[in-house]
Amino acid sequence: MAIGLTDNPQLLPVPGIMLAACSAGIYNKQRPDLALLACDPGSVTAAVFTSNAFCAAPVIIARDHLKKTQPRYLLINAGNANAGTGRQGIADASLVCRQLARQAGCRVAEILPFSTGVIGVPLPVNRIKRALPRLMAGLSAKGWSEVARAIMTTDTLAKGISRQIIVSGQKITVTGIVKGSGMIRPDMATMLAFIATDALIKRPLLAAILREAVTSSFNCISVDGDTSTNDACVLIATGKAHTGVISRMREAAAVKLRTAVMEICAYLAQSVIRDGEGATKFLTIEITHGRTRRECQKVAHAIAHSPLVKTALSASDPNWGRIIAAIGNAGLSGLKTDKIRLYLDNVCIFEKGMRAGNYTETVGKAIFSKPEIKMRVDLGRGRAGYQFWTCDLSTEYVRINADYRS
Amino acid sequence: MAIGLTDNPQLLPVPGIMLAACSAGIYNKQRPDLALLACDPGSVTAAVFTSNAFCAAPVIIARDHLKKTQPRYLLINAGNANAGTGRQGIADASLVCRQLARQAGCRVAEILPFSTGVIGVPLPVNRIKRALPRLMAGLSAKGWSEVARAIMTTDTLAKGISRQIIVSGQKITVTGIVKGSGMIRPDMATMLAFIATDALIKRPLLAAILREAVTSSFNCISVDGDTSTNDACVLIATGKAHTGVISRMREAAAVKLRTAVMEICAYLAQSVIRDGEGATKFLTIEITHGRTRRECQKVAHAIAHSPLVKTALSASDPNWGRIIAAIGNAGLSGLKTDKIRLYLDNVCIFEKGMRAGNYTETVGKAIFSKPEIKMRVDLGRGRAGYQFWTCDLSTEYVRINADYRS
Repeated sequence: MAIGLTDNPQLLPVPGIMLAACSAGIYNKQRPDLALLACDPGSVTAAVFTSNAFCAAPVIIARDHLKKTQPRYLLINAGNANAGTGRQGIADASLVCRQLARQAGCRVAEILPFSTGVIGVPLPVNRIKRALPRLMAGLSAKGWSEVARAIMTTDTLAKGISRQIIVSGQKITVTGIVKGSGMIRPDMATMLAFIATDALIKRPLLAAILREAVTSSFNCISVDGDTSTNDACVLIATGKAHTGVISRMREAAAVKLRTAVMEICAYLAQSVIRDGEGATKFLTIEITHGRTRRECQKVAHAIAHSPLVKTALSASDPNWGRIIAAIGNAGLSGLKTDKIRLYLDNVCIFEKGMRAGNYTETVGKAIFSKPEIKMRVDLGRGRAGYQFWTCDLSTEYVRINADYRS
Repeated sequence: MAIGLTDNPQLLPVPGIMLAACSAGIYNKQRPDLALLACDPGSVTAAVFTSNAFCAAPVIIARDHLKKTQPRYLLINAGNANAGTGRQGIADASLVCRQLARQAGCRVAEILPFSTGVIGVPLPVNRIKRALPRLMAGLSAKGWSEVARAIMTTDTLAKGISRQIIVSGQKITVTGIVKGSGMIRPDMATMLAFIATDALIKRPLLAAILREAVTSSFNCISVDGDTSTNDACVLIATGKAHTGVISRMREAAAVKLRTAVMEICAYLAQSVIRDGEGATKFLTIEITHGRTRRECQKVAHAIAHSPLVKTALSASDPNWGRIIAAIGNAGLSGLKTDKIRLYLDNVCIFEKGMRAGNYTETVGKAIFSKPEIKMRVDLGRGRAGYQFWTCDLSTEYVRINADYRS
């Protein structure tokens, strides 16, 4: 049950991008599990990858290929992470890339592999190889939704969004899709996000926009505090739009594009939380008046990663004692607890070191019973702020993750 | 269901210590919820408290009283943490201390208050006051088990242990009890531990022994990564033993006492994990060959706090991919993943970046199905080590914490 999301998002084609998905048999059951995204020559690509030291084979290869040239194909599989697979994993991912390069008539380095799924199981190379001709034949500008579905693992629905902006009188499209639902925390998650636009833009500027957008979106979410081995967020610009080249951040066109990419990243990142494993509540945590962004972040993480806060949220129990215990636990030096105010939606529930005078359990219960809740912590000691998104911890989360491989 | 523990531990009286417990009505149901520990004049006491910035009123007062004098009485209640209660909380805890001081004929500063239970609810001062005469009248050298039971919250059984050592031909007893089962993580937990001995020892040495024992016991456990507002660990020495004064760490008597206290703290800390909320598995995590103790600690914490590792453990699913993802996630710089070896019990399951050659799922499943499991991570890059204890994350944990206040 995803909170406030509907399945089958309406996704707009992006000139210069073709996509396809198919069932390659990576999962035992028949379901789409392999996807291909092709971008026209002249496209430029920026990407951000997991910070996990045990990054997966496809991450190692994709990083390497991106250093050499600009990609033409993204090959993505679900059902197998190709992580914790050592040298064999690297060899397997390379083999699949070589095979696709031969069929597509491009260089191996022009292919980026992505995998998501169970860790430590060898990649089923032959099944993937066999499916490549079908994928190549199936490429279509309308394939976005199909691909959004094929990259799902424990996701309950396909997630994506499109935006259009007008630059120099020309319509420019930005479309993005995302998968991810568990093993989600800051600095990327078991999360694959693919975003494309037909904007004509210089690569360094595209990379700068992606970095900025990821900082306030994908790096500000957590389902369970675990960072995956396979995360990646890719932004492709095909340059098909009939405008001049966007080359500096200050240009009006760059500002518009940046805003659209940031909105899309925020939407996609929040979608991951809304579709978090077992999630029944979507919680926005806003920290204000901290000394630094970093300390606001610490407080947000302490709250978002507290199993006690998350289980109380799951039970619609406004047990604010656990929230203040988490704040006190964030490791901020010289914290004056009597300066701290805690709000649920806009109701102050805690101030001067104790329950706020007007606050009643009935009010708290009513707020905590809603599927979407905003929590604000005013640290009362500075001017920095931070926003973060998380979900509750339900018995369903445990059930999903206990049964994942069975 | 506690793992490998039995209820009603056999606890030996400690000369110079008297205890009592009663039902004061702090809980709605009839159960022991208030306890008193009295120590004879001449006793010396060391204590360690929570690092949570939102520490509870009794913690603030106990710290303050300890600075002024040596305690004569410890007053402990369950069912109410008296935390997040602001100035009223301080006033309430002080009032109760004053009342007890009057009845006991001692100074207010000679009383240390301790509370555990729900946060943010005013302390039921009158109920506690009314129960004090009963407590004073009930003091007995044999009250340890009764008190161990009265301080329980979500604990499923009373936890404690006794040891005896011989110093200069004299028998010296050390007895300790502990409560705690959730909101447990390093640097103290929702955990109250009271340990007493009749050893005759100087206070600074007693404090040094306690600090050392806590470092390798109570600070090396985690149920859910949350640090409580109320934690305390107290070590009292009544000096009733007919030996010379133990005054230096190198003395044979000090070494014996230190060993006994360390063993008792290790046992009590591990008992908390064995009785962890919803726990069905007791996991010992050993990190070896790290560069520093600190980095070994980081790896242990990353594993112990990973909901994905904890849910796999709960399901007896040897999903080692999640363990290596957690290791990769611990933030160690320059980690060579192909140097890392992972063992379950003594079976190597991961080396050279991939599943170990001899390892089979059947073996892993057999190990993960046991109630007590040892996990060892060899970082292969130094000489430091660290040990840590944790439990699994079960649907029962979520249920307990979702229903805690209902």
